Amino acid sequence: MTHDKYWMNEALAEAGRGFALDEIPVGAVIVLGEECIARAHDMRETTGDPTAHAEMLALREGAKKIGDWRLADCDLYVTLEPCPMCAGAIILARIRRLVYGAPNHKSGAVQTHCRLLDIETFNHKVEVVSGVLADQSAELLKKFFAAKR
Amino acid sequence: MTHDKYWMNEALAEAGRGFALDEIPVGAVIVLGEECIARAHDMRETTGDPTAHAEMLALREGAKKIGDWRLADCDLYVTLEPCPMCAGAIILARIRRLVYGAPNHKSGAVQTHCRLLDIETFNHKVEVVSGVLADQSAELLKKFFAAKR
Repeated sequence: MTHDKYWMNEALAEAGRGFALDEIPVGAVIVLGEECIARAHDMRETTGDPTAHAEMLALREGAKKIGDWRLADCDLYVTLEPCPMCAGAIILARIRRLVYGAPNHKSGAVQTHCRLLDIETFNHKVEVVSGVLADQSAELLKKFFAAKR
Repeated sequence: MTHDKYWMNEALAEAGRGFALDEIPVGAVIVLGEECIARAHDMRETTGDPTAHAEMLALREGAKKIGDWRLADCDLYVTLEPCPMCAGAIILARIRRLVYGAPNHKSGAVQTHCRLLDIETFNHKVEVVSGVLADQSAELLKKFFAAKR
């Protein structure tokens, strides 16, 4: 659990960097063993890429780093429950373990609006831990959206 | 319908290009008005990117082309029913109309294993047409997987 909090703090730091760029503050890191092999925050507004969520960018960077699209033995930490696109990508990349912070009330696809990781036919089982440093993540998002109003 | 077949043929041509590269033969094009603004085929093996499905690459190229992550008024043609990642990205990019060919028995997320585009809370309604030139698409996939055995 200390291990999970440590890496979630790193993901929160990424979310903060996104906030500073006026991006929705969501951050992600990919951990292999004791090493962080990729880190990212949302970049949709900066890049104009509709797929530039933190998880997607981290998965792509991680795959590049290890030279394989199969991120077996890798764990993904993300500050917010993944949306359908990101949950799907997590399955495709064969992530071992997903640890996330706050629930995603708008488009959560792990536990909130659907449970994509539970569909047996996708043929890859991801271990899921939720609620790690959830309050810090939710607080940052709240601050971001309040400033937008 | 002639219009849909015309553009699906273009998507099938992309799938064929993927086949020639030993990629799973799935192709996609994005159409705005009478113009094709993006075209792609799967590139996972060539690039080592777990997210490099035809639809994702086409969405990213299309957004770059029009300079906006919102692909409003754009239609996506793809030879195979999208997986969860791609169906999620189609919602995020606000695609107007999705036209696909063959059903995806392994990981279809539009009509086969789940119906992601029907979840109201995601707040964007995509018009869906399925089965366009489905036999040609299925035939190409069958040929690909038969050669792999």
